[in-house]
Amino acid sequence: MRELGIGLIGTGFMGRAHALAFRNVSAVFELPLKLNLAALADADPQRARHCADAWGFATAHSDWQQLIDDPKVNLIAITTPNHLHYPMAMAALAAGKAVYCEKPLAVSLEQASAMREAARSAGVVTRVGYNYQHNPMIVLARELIKNGELGEIISFQGEFSEDFMADPTSPWSWRCDPNHAGGALADLGSHLLSMARYLIGEVEAVCADTQTVHSQRPESPGSTVLKPIAIDDQVHALLRFANGARGTFSSSWLKHGYKNHLSFEISGTRGTLAFDQERLNELRLFRAGQDGFQRLLAGPNLPGYAAFSPAPGHQLGYNELKTLEVHDLIMALAGDSRGGTDFEQAWAVERLATAIRLAAREQRWVRIEEV
Amino acid sequence: MRELGIGLIGTGFMGRAHALAFRNVSAVFELPLKLNLAALADADPQRARHCADAWGFATAHSDWQQLIDDPKVNLIAITTPNHLHYPMAMAALAAGKAVYCEKPLAVSLEQASAMREAARSAGVVTRVGYNYQHNPMIVLARELIKNGELGEIISFQGEFSEDFMADPTSPWSWRCDPNHAGGALADLGSHLLSMARYLIGEVEAVCADTQTVHSQRPESPGSTVLKPIAIDDQVHALLRFANGARGTFSSSWLKHGYKNHLSFEISGTRGTLAFDQERLNELRLFRAGQDGFQRLLAGPNLPGYAAFSPAPGHQLGYNELKTLEVHDLIMALAGDSRGGTDFEQAWAVERLATAIRLAAREQRWVRIEEV
Amino acid sequence: MRELGIGLIGTGFMGRAHALAFRNVSAVFELPLKLNLAALADADPQRARHCADAWGFATAHSDWQQLIDDPKVNLIAITTPNHLHYPMAMAALAAGKAVYCEKPLAVSLEQASAMREAARSAGVVTRVGYNYQHNPMIVLARELIKNGELGEIISFQGEFSEDFMADPTSPWSWRCDPNHAGGALADLGSHLLSMARYLIGEVEAVCADTQTVHSQRPESPGSTVLKPIAIDDQVHALLRFANGARGTFSSSWLKHGYKNHLSFEISGTRGTLAFDQERLNELRLFRAGQDGFQRLLAGPNLPGYAAFSPAPGHQLGYNELKTLEVHDLIMALAGDSRGGTDFEQAWAVERLATAIRLAAREQRWVRIEEV
Amino acid sequence: MRELGIGLIGTGFMGRAHALAFRNVSAVFELPLKLNLAALADADPQRARHCADAWGFATAHSDWQQLIDDPKVNLIAITTPNHLHYPMAMAALAAGKAVYCEKPLAVSLEQASAMREAARSAGVVTRVGYNYQHNPMIVLARELIKNGELGEIISFQGEFSEDFMADPTSPWSWRCDPNHAGGALADLGSHLLSMARYLIGEVEAVCADTQTVHSQRPESPGSTVLKPIAIDDQVHALLRFANGARGTFSSSWLKHGYKNHLSFEISGTRGTLAFDQERLNELRLFRAGQDGFQRLLAGPNLPGYAAFSPAPGHQLGYNELKTLEVHDLIMALAGDSRGGTDFEQAWAVERLATAIRLAAREQRWVRIEEV
Repeated sequence: MRELGIGLIGTGFMGRAHALAFRNVSAVFELPLKLNLAALADADPQRARHCADAWGFATAHSDWQQLIDDPKVNLIAITTPNHLHYPMAMAALAAGKAVYCEKPLAVSLEQASAMREAARSAGVVTRVGYNYQHNPMIVLARELIKNGELGEIISFQGEFSEDFMADPTSPWSWRCDPNHAGGALADLGSHLLSMARYLIGEVEAVCADTQTVHSQRPESPGSTVLKPIAIDDQVHALLRFANGARGTFSSSWLKHGYKNHLSFEISGTRGTLAFDQERLNELRLFRAGQDGFQRLLAGPNLPGYAAFSPAPGHQLGYNELKTLEVHDLIMALAGDSRGGTDFEQAWAVERLATAIRLAAREQRWVRIEEV
Repeated sequence: MRELGIGLIGTGFMGRAHALAFRNVSAVFELPLKLNLAALADADPQRARHCADAWGFATAHSDWQQLIDDPKVNLIAITTPNHLHYPMAMAALAAGKAVYCEKPLAVSLEQASAMREAARSAGVVTRVGYNYQHNPMIVLARELIKNGELGEIISFQGEFSEDFMADPTSPWSWRCDPNHAGGALADLGSHLLSMARYLIGEVEAVCADTQTVHSQRPESPGSTVLKPIAIDDQVHALLRFANGARGTFSSSWLKHGYKNHLSFEISGTRGTLAFDQERLNELRLFRAGQDGFQRLLAGPNLPGYAAFSPAPGHQLGYNELKTLEVHDLIMALAGDSRGGTDFEQAWAVERLATAIRLAAREQRWVRIEEV
Repeated sequence: MRELGIGLIGTGFMGRAHALAFRNVSAVFELPLKLNLAALADADPQRARHCADAWGFATAHSDWQQLIDDPKVNLIAITTPNHLHYPMAMAALAAGKAVYCEKPLAVSLEQASAMREAARSAGVVTRVGYNYQHNPMIVLARELIKNGELGEIISFQGEFSEDFMADPTSPWSWRCDPNHAGGALADLGSHLLSMARYLIGEVEAVCADTQTVHSQRPESPGSTVLKPIAIDDQVHALLRFANGARGTFSSSWLKHGYKNHLSFEISGTRGTLAFDQERLNELRLFRAGQDGFQRLLAGPNLPGYAAFSPAPGHQLGYNELKTLEVHDLIMALAGDSRGGTDFEQAWAVERLATAIRLAAREQRWVRIEEV
Repeated sequence: MRELGIGLIGTGFMGRAHALAFRNVSAVFELPLKLNLAALADADPQRARHCADAWGFATAHSDWQQLIDDPKVNLIAITTPNHLHYPMAMAALAAGKAVYCEKPLAVSLEQASAMREAARSAGVVTRVGYNYQHNPMIVLARELIKNGELGEIISFQGEFSEDFMADPTSPWSWRCDPNHAGGALADLGSHLLSMARYLIGEVEAVCADTQTVHSQRPESPGSTVLKPIAIDDQVHALLRFANGARGTFSSSWLKHGYKNHLSFEISGTRGTLAFDQERLNELRLFRAGQDGFQRLLAGPNLPGYAAFSPAPGHQLGYNELKTLEVHDLIMALAGDSRGGTDFEQAWAVERLATAIRLAAREQRWVRIEEV
């Protein structure tokens, strides 16, 4: 069996999530490739070594370029802060290697466009970490929609809100920096835009409103020095989909009480479905003629679930969605792509987010082709 | 005790709801006025007589003008189809009588403006049937907001959807006629606009999208003759409130699975509350610092609930919201107004709906002063 | 149309609920009898007069025997504390009048047996206020069960808990007195026993555990004098139904967080249904082969709901269940009985509660015939 | 760092769940021991080899005794059908090795007693797979109870129901064989008994009812040959806890609509908590004085959650509860036991289940010391 050398850059929340996924995927699925956890990079050499040992990677690097150049590495997984996605992905593509990059793809549409072009030229497999789409319940939702079980899709109401910045004394971080793709729209909203496109298709026009609620924050935890902030704390938008559906979109990182509230309702001429990431193993479904909404629980009738458990109702966790994403990636690398989010799709998400920002700035409807 | 003569026009769903409310209110509350169910009018004399008997009204009229002229009648309750609100309310005001009119106030902003002027001139008490605001849980929500328990209000996500027109073979009715204030926005959405204003305050600008999904319907039940339809089946909008809050608004009568889904979430810098009319006795509340959302159940700590039951969790029904509305009206007639929706407020709702239609037609942001 | 003279004894929570129901029922239903709110009795003559005026009763009595003797009165509604049910009902039956008595029927099985005998001899219509059974969702549940939609019924899990006595400083009241049918089992549990019998049928054997958690309480609000208490604060039981189903039963008035938690799940060989009185307009239903539980909302497909509203999802309130109960009573008085809870059925509930107490006292299974 | 050699017996649902847990635990936690996936055994040599490769175990055995004798193996994980727990665990203990055995511990109380004795004599670490207790929300529930946040515990209502045997054509399997610890009580109920003991403490007396609903089933899938069945399809019981709390217990594998409904409510003199394994990342909590139940979402304030994610609301899955169980086991092996379920505790669960069966058979209350 052909071997696939994995090189992972970054050791934060997402770094570990990737590591867990690469470790699990071969125990959970029958894979056409043999995975080799070849190398891990972190700017801090001690941390790189420590994490490589803990997570089972053979080599540790403090210089990510060395990891990319490592001949044992075929796939570069990028989990660093957003502004590093561009240089790392471009270097990896230049080296002809497959790339698995965390979301958002880049910190500007210009960067995203260049990355898309480079990926096209390199002709390699790329994936971007919109992992919520790999949830078996979302795959089911897509099937239901595609098979026409909701009829013609006519409306979308979506919201992705959390409250991790709700406290005005939560300090500044790079997430507050527009040059690092900060803000609720890039950080949270992009997941929902990707989801909406995945389920319903392209958006053709948007109108939007963005808002900075807390215009200054401590420059570091506990600091009394306040730093001015100009990023979107919340965004609201109208969406017009190419297929005729219309809808609303909201995203906030100030919304008290919500921890992972990527939620949406999609209705069509024959039914409605509703989802909330805070209950990721459930889907509410109403088919015309039915008496009331059904609450579906994930079970082994869904292949992505069956991989983890033969028993329904036992529930997948967040990290397992990452394993499903890695499985999709590996299948694509083995030539059996199932249509995950590649740089092409992720660029389209960036374009859509850029259109939303433009619409908010100019307070007008923006057609997606304008950006 | 001074007597108040009630004259009720209309005997449909709303006519009976008014009748029940007038019958109940004096058993439930200690009132400063003695109610006299003086007269009832319906164009069909037999039905007028039958309903008058069943509901306890002394006199039956087939000509509503006679009811208005009846000297025993001090208050005119109007529950007829929307296009009749204007002539009836104008006649009542001309006769110097108090008016309690079902929503929406009128079929055009012009009518609504004239009605507002007439009410000002007449100097009488007016009320419009936005009864959901009288729900004790909504009164509580308003108190929480006013008392600053959610901090500064920053966002609103509201939706009022039902599915009674979801079946494309549901026939044409006056609700499909724009000249009768048809469409999802007037029929359902106006309730939500009124609610948003009640809870958060004036809206200063809107952007919107309206859509006719089913462009023809049978002209009558079962008919094969199809009638073209140009009314809004669904509407989506962005709202900018005068106090700085921003939000989304959706309304549809095509959304499968929903029967009375007037729902909203309001968040502020210190908390979030959420409500759904399909569970009208509940409120979900999160205060900063709390571990999770609380589910509040209506109870006798709320005066509007205590009027009906000394025991918490026993639940009010839709008809009792109408009784609470009538109580507010009667208190206003006795000189003790608590700020219900009068023609002034209802006109503002009409203006807001008109702004939404304009924004949708011209596909641009509209400031409320423009209309 | 024949006239029915109503005599109401008692003006508390239940007195007013009865009054509202008698006022509403003729506006909501086409009745075969004309109701006359003939007389109201309360030991306090001033209160009797005041309530008679407010609720529309013609005559006020301070002596309930006079009300029973009043020739204008055909039906005696009893809403006084439990220990008065027996003398009042016996007097009414002796006078040959129909009786509508609040639950529980009596303070002992001996009383209940005598009342049952007297009702049989009098040959009049009797009803007991187990109003939750008149909820259209419960009527639907019974239909589903009777029509075999759940298959053969095999299990019942029921609980009726509230928290109004949870605070150990809540003072003694007659509800703490076993001679007044005090305790959680009589006060709350009897509703659930009645419901279980209504839905599944007779119980043939029980085993049970009762417990006094707070063995003393202030003798009056705020008092430092403590009064010993020996009543059941909570009860747990096993039920064996005559049809072979088995189940559990719990009732408590100490269970923090619950306000009206009369809840149950009933499962059969082909499905499961679940209900909670705190959401009285809903039923959760799972039919074999279905993907997940459906949440049904009450609507006008159910006759008891249609009487109040033509629109689904608008919700009935507690007081309207009382109106439905009164409707059942009036239909029975007109000769069209639909099988409401009469003294016969209410006696069977008392017998079952008595069996539960015996089983708890002797810590053994008790067959229902033993008591 | 000291190395710990893992030997895993069995490759079914639970075998893989163990394998995943052993693979993940060292990536998720900083461990005091270095894990070596030394050997895997399955009666089928090809399957043993295949799973060893896929899951990363060095050696494959078809004879489990060889695995136990393997000097590289220090810990024996047993995931075979129930009747094999006894011989395998006894052999492992005889070899002085630590044992991690799936639940239920044994197929009879006699076996369980012998295993408990052998474990005492061997003086090694033992654990039994009651993994639901390792859920951070359950650990939180236990803390809340221990810290007195619910006051004195007074009631328990618990149910563990699924529907995987609800279809009467579901064929016979060893789970239907009482000699293999079949039946709803052993298969599902034992989890709930273990949970009740973990949260509230010892049970001192029980009364119970068990029932075989489907007395014959196809002997294999699709077969027309029916095999008689005498196992409990459902069980209902009353529990009296040593601390004075009382409660109900239900378990069924016939209850349509439920997939993993291990649910309970525990109430005390100062609050109530409620849990349902079908939403394993949530806990409903009501503290006296609060307005309504709070819905808590798992987050990194709980150590067991923080190990997997720094972000609240992202949710753990079933397999991660297994990883937490393995972490507890490894910490115990390193001398830092946190009190997981060892053979002593698991024996007590068996004793309790045996008491329930006795109480059902003899239709009487049984004190736990009787068995």
